[in-house]
Amino acid sequence: MALRPALALTTGEPAGIGPEIAAAVAAGHPEVRLVLLGDRALLSQRAQALGCSADWPDFDPQRDDDVALLHLPLATHAEPGRLDPANAGYVLRLLDAAVDGCLAGSFAAMVTAPIHKGVINDAGVADGFFFGHTEYLAQRTGTGQVVMLLAGSGMRVALATTHLPLAEVPAAITPQGLSRTLRILDHDLRHKFGIAAPRILVAGLNPHAGEAGHLGREEIEIIEPTLAALRAEGLTLIGPLPADTLFNTKQLARGDAVLAMYHDQGLPVLKYASFGHGVNVTLGLPLIRTSVDHGTALDLAGRGTADPGSLHAAVRLAAGLVARQGRAD
Amino acid sequence: MALRPALALTTGEPAGIGPEIAAAVAAGHPEVRLVLLGDRALLSQRAQALGCSADWPDFDPQRDDDVALLHLPLATHAEPGRLDPANAGYVLRLLDAAVDGCLAGSFAAMVTAPIHKGVINDAGVADGFFFGHTEYLAQRTGTGQVVMLLAGSGMRVALATTHLPLAEVPAAITPQGLSRTLRILDHDLRHKFGIAAPRILVAGLNPHAGEAGHLGREEIEIIEPTLAALRAEGLTLIGPLPADTLFNTKQLARGDAVLAMYHDQGLPVLKYASFGHGVNVTLGLPLIRTSVDHGTALDLAGRGTADPGSLHAAVRLAAGLVARQGRAD
Repeated sequence: MALRPALALTTGEPAGIGPEIAAAVAAGHPEVRLVLLGDRALLSQRAQALGCSADWPDFDPQRDDDVALLHLPLATHAEPGRLDPANAGYVLRLLDAAVDGCLAGSFAAMVTAPIHKGVINDAGVADGFFFGHTEYLAQRTGTGQVVMLLAGSGMRVALATTHLPLAEVPAAITPQGLSRTLRILDHDLRHKFGIAAPRILVAGLNPHAGEAGHLGREEIEIIEPTLAALRAEGLTLIGPLPADTLFNTKQLARGDAVLAMYHDQGLPVLKYASFGHGVNVTLGLPLIRTSVDHGTALDLAGRGTADPGSLHAAVRLAAGLVARQGRAD
Repeated sequence: MALRPALALTTGEPAGIGPEIAAAVAAGHPEVRLVLLGDRALLSQRAQALGCSADWPDFDPQRDDDVALLHLPLATHAEPGRLDPANAGYVLRLLDAAVDGCLAGSFAAMVTAPIHKGVINDAGVADGFFFGHTEYLAQRTGTGQVVMLLAGSGMRVALATTHLPLAEVPAAITPQGLSRTLRILDHDLRHKFGIAAPRILVAGLNPHAGEAGHLGREEIEIIEPTLAALRAEGLTLIGPLPADTLFNTKQLARGDAVLAMYHDQGLPVLKYASFGHGVNVTLGLPLIRTSVDHGTALDLAGRGTADPGSLHAAVRLAAGLVARQGRAD
């Protein structure tokens, strides 16, 4: 009998809500084998505090268990709500094990619970400044450029630039960068999301998409020529459109995804619309990766009151992408 | 018997949807006297095309008519969908008449239907480049600084900067400008919206509100000190907050209004949330002014299919502000 695809779920920062929301969502996904990556004692304890079963067998790639555990040990006991740099290396080991398993084929996708950038940087365990999951996974897989996409409530919003000071955004919108981003987005909408002919709504950089040059010239000088060149390659690109009127039902229905030029142009509306059930997807990687769209919520950790909605959605989307993968090839 | 307050409704660009949506909303607001400002033949024709009554008496400040007309003649016949620079001066005369009436006390507030910036600039009838209603009204009333606020679905979003190229936004966030904006917002929430102790949620400029300086230093160097100084004056200011997590129900419930740092940080989410029923309010003026949040929709003009929802909401909000005005004094 064929095994169901195995999804790695990295349970994230041990002082945060990751372990408990991972335990909470573990049982609800019969379409896949869900493999929790984390410390067995930690996860068992947080699961039991929720009244959830924690009798997960050790992960065996040859066995079709609904839920299994890949035990990776904490460096030291983790207290809910209390960050400890001693466990920062543990958090990265969970990611490394998931990436390695995806690349080796034992995992079909990886789903990540939240981590805490601050404590990883304090511990100095990453190679250089640790910006977050997305950048770490790009580096770990040798991927030159990745694209961050958030999905929720039927909306998909990708970003042309991500974690940059606002003052650096205009100069970061270049024909080369924008072309790479749009090619990755188009490619992954086809090959990961299974959309045969994706239509992408592209926001302008400036208010009112520059209003014919009165409110900035990047649309005329950079964005429009770049879109024209990519349309000649066969991409379906609509825009540049004013961001403030792009996000209405009628406009959104014209596209399969939106490309926003920067973080706060695209994410406030996506997160508002998805009501805490948004999913972050990293495009351009040689693997499928989805994530929650929220942080570690240290103040809620260990209480069993954290909403596992976004993690549920992230597992569902990863499972859906695994099922659709390559369908539009 | 006391007269109800009179609201001036400028019917806007004659080739656009303004005249027909003005005719459509005219009847539905018994709490006020609604005074349509525009050309009688034009408005009658558009009203009749909708099957609406157009037997509005001429405006008489001493008479308590539900709906009245202040006739101001077109320069030339207006064809739906066809902009004509010859009528650009007419559009400004409607605004001037509304402003003059508000300042003289014959109108309690003004509500504006959409105008078309391009044709006003083509005609060269304004003094310098015509940026839009907001800037024109500021200039016309000698107001040094105004604040644009959009309201809808229970959300109020004001902007620290408005129609600026994105590259100019960071330098435009200064302690002086931000203080003026926040004082105007606080003042008008008290004196126009009748909120006794307004709480303002302030967004950061950078993604994640700068993430402790890693993603930009304007929060540390400009925004936080400015907020601290204003708190010492008695303003209740929460932030700077990351814009992508600010717009959720729980956070929004902590404040009476949001201050976004720039156009596309605040308006996409407000317009998405308000589903085409958002209202634009200009704060800081010596009069009450509300407006639709959409444009002239030339492609729909004359068909009677345009949605008057935003203009209805703008009239309702103006009427509400007139009723509440000064209540928190």
